[in-house]
Amino acid sequence: MAVYTPVSADDLTAFLAGYDVGAAVSFKGIAEGVENSNFLLETTRGRFILTLYEKRVDAGDLPWFLALMGHLAAKGLPVPGPVVDARGQVLQVLNGRPACLIEFLPGVSVTEATPEAAREVGAALGQMHRALADFTAPRPNALGPAAWPPLAARCDGRLGEIDAGLPDAVARGLAAAAADWPAGLPQSTIHADLFPDNVLMLDGRVTGLIDFYFACTDARAYDVAITHAAWCFSADGRQFFPERATGLMRGYLAEVELSAAERAALPRLAAGAALRFTLTRAYDWLNTPADALVTRKDPMAFARRLTWYLDADCSGNGPEMMGG
Amino acid sequence: MAVYTPVSADDLTAFLAGYDVGAAVSFKGIAEGVENSNFLLETTRGRFILTLYEKRVDAGDLPWFLALMGHLAAKGLPVPGPVVDARGQVLQVLNGRPACLIEFLPGVSVTEATPEAAREVGAALGQMHRALADFTAPRPNALGPAAWPPLAARCDGRLGEIDAGLPDAVARGLAAAAADWPAGLPQSTIHADLFPDNVLMLDGRVTGLIDFYFACTDARAYDVAITHAAWCFSADGRQFFPERATGLMRGYLAEVELSAAERAALPRLAAGAALRFTLTRAYDWLNTPADALVTRKDPMAFARRLTWYLDADCSGNGPEMMGG
Repeated sequence: MAVYTPVSADDLTAFLAGYDVGAAVSFKGIAEGVENSNFLLETTRGRFILTLYEKRVDAGDLPWFLALMGHLAAKGLPVPGPVVDARGQVLQVLNGRPACLIEFLPGVSVTEATPEAAREVGAALGQMHRALADFTAPRPNALGPAAWPPLAARCDGRLGEIDAGLPDAVARGLAAAAADWPAGLPQSTIHADLFPDNVLMLDGRVTGLIDFYFACTDARAYDVAITHAAWCFSADGRQFFPERATGLMRGYLAEVELSAAERAALPRLAAGAALRFTLTRAYDWLNTPADALVTRKDPMAFARRLTWYLDADCSGNGPEMMGG
Repeated sequence: MAVYTPVSADDLTAFLAGYDVGAAVSFKGIAEGVENSNFLLETTRGRFILTLYEKRVDAGDLPWFLALMGHLAAKGLPVPGPVVDARGQVLQVLNGRPACLIEFLPGVSVTEATPEAAREVGAALGQMHRALADFTAPRPNALGPAAWPPLAARCDGRLGEIDAGLPDAVARGLAAAAADWPAGLPQSTIHADLFPDNVLMLDGRVTGLIDFYFACTDARAYDVAITHAAWCFSADGRQFFPERATGLMRGYLAEVELSAAERAALPRLAAGAALRFTLTRAYDWLNTPADALVTRKDPMAFARRLTWYLDADCSGNGPEMMGG
C-alpha cells in the first residue's frame, strides 16, 4: 500500500524514451499491491501501469511472470500485458529495481463477492486455465504442501499468541495434508491468489485479472479451491455463503470439466489453501510491528475456513457442501 | 504516501449516487499527500480525485479550503475545483471522514526545478495572487512567526540529535524573526506550500497548482519567499541556483508589482520560511520512528537555506542575491 521507490519526472522521461508509447501526460504513484511500487501513467497514446519490483519478488522469476501475462493478454483474456520496448524487451531496470511497463485495464476491484460476481470469476478462472493449456514452462509452487510444515515451524510456537484456537487448527491442517494430499490431478499454470481484490469488474463483467506474482504450476483444481476459499466466506471466515460457492463452481464448470477425482479432492485442496493463507498471514502477523502502517491480515479469518473445509471433508459430502 | 481509509466499490457507488458524474470505470488509491487518503477515479464522464481528509486536517477549515480552490478554478487558474453534488454541496462524509470529489488535472509533478520551470511557477503564483484579490475570507497562518518559538520548544532541546549545527541555526533564525519580522506588507490569501511536488507541468507549462491545505492569509511577499526557498536550492540546501531565482522572480514580477518595502523584506521573509520548514521537519523527524514507512524529510536541507538567507540579509544586497 505504498510507493517504496520514487520515480521522478526525469527518470520517467528517460525510461519512456525507450518505448513507442508517447509522452507522459499524468503520473501518479498508486497504493496497490503490498510487494511492489506501482504508478499509473497516462501518455499521449494511452494508459499504463509502471511497476518497480521490490525485494520480496525474486528477479529471476520475473521473465516467467511477464511471459505468462503476455500469453494471456495475447489470447484476449482480461489480463494486463507487458509492453514491449523499441528493442523488443519487456523487463527493464529503473532506479535500481527491475521494472516493467504494463497495460492498464479498466474496472474496480471487487469488494463484495456476490453470487453473480463469483460466477463471473469462476468463468474467468476456467477461461484462464483453458488459455494456459499451451503455456508449459513450469514454475514450482514455493508455497505448496512441502512449504507448510517449515512455515509453521518458523512461527516459533507463537501461534497461540494470535488466538488460543490457532495451534490446534494448524496442527489439524498439517496432519490432514501430510496424511492424504491429493496427487496425480491434472496440472496447469495457476493464478494461486485470485482474491476479490485481484479481480477488476465493470457492469458485472470481469475486466481484469491482476497480480500474477504467486502464479505457479500446480493442480488446476487447487486454483479452484484457492478461489473458493477467497470468495465464498465472510471476510472473518465465520460464515460460508453457499450461493457464492454455487455461482463460482457453475461459472468454472461451464468452461472446464473437472474429473470425479478432482471434484472429490476439492475439500482437501481447499483445506490446504486455507492452511497456506493461515500460515503466511500468521508469519506476517508475528513479524509485523502492531504500529506499522501496513495493515496486518488476521490469520484467524483463514483458520476458520480451514476448520470448515476439514469438517466438510470428514462429512463425506464435501464437494456438494462446497457447491461443486 | 498511503491510503489510510479504504473505500470499497460499494462505498464508492453509494457516494457517486449523490453526484451527476456518471458511473465508476476505474478507481485506484494514489500515493499522494501525507495527510489524506486520495483516490484517482475515472467515471463514464471524466476523471476526478476523491479525497478523504484524515486527522491532521481540521474539518472546520475544509469549507474555506474548498471555497478557495473553487474560486481559483472558476477564474480559470490551473487549480482543481471541488465538484458540486446534486444538492449543491461539495463537502461530504465518507467512511467517517470528511470527503470531497475534486477535478482531476493533467500534468506530472515537477522534480527538476529548472530556471524555465521556476519562471513558469513564478508567473502562476503571481496570477494566483491577482485572482485572489477578491477572495477576502481570512484564515490566520497557524505556522507564522508566533508559532515558531513554541514549535522550537516542543523539540525539547533535542535539535542537536539531528545535527550538531541545527540548534545554532534555529536560534539565529528565531532571534532574527523576533527582532525584525516585516510588518505592514500587502496581504493576500497565499498558498504557503508551493513546492515543486505541488506543481504539475506538461510541455513546460503549469497545468496544476495543488495541495492548498496550508493556504492562509499572510503577506503575498511571504508566499514568494516560501516559493523561492522551495525552488532555488539543491534538495539538500547546500547549493543556491541563481538562474532559478532570476526565473522565479521575473515570472512573478511580470504579473505582480512588488513594492520597495516588499523587495527589501524578501531575505528576512525567506529566512522565516526556511525556519518554518526547518522546525516542522525537525519536529516530525524527532517524532517519527526511523523504521516508519513514511519518509522523514531532512530538517538540515532547510536549516542550510535559513543560514544562506540570514547571511544574504546581513550582506545588505539580499534582494539582488535572491534574484529579485
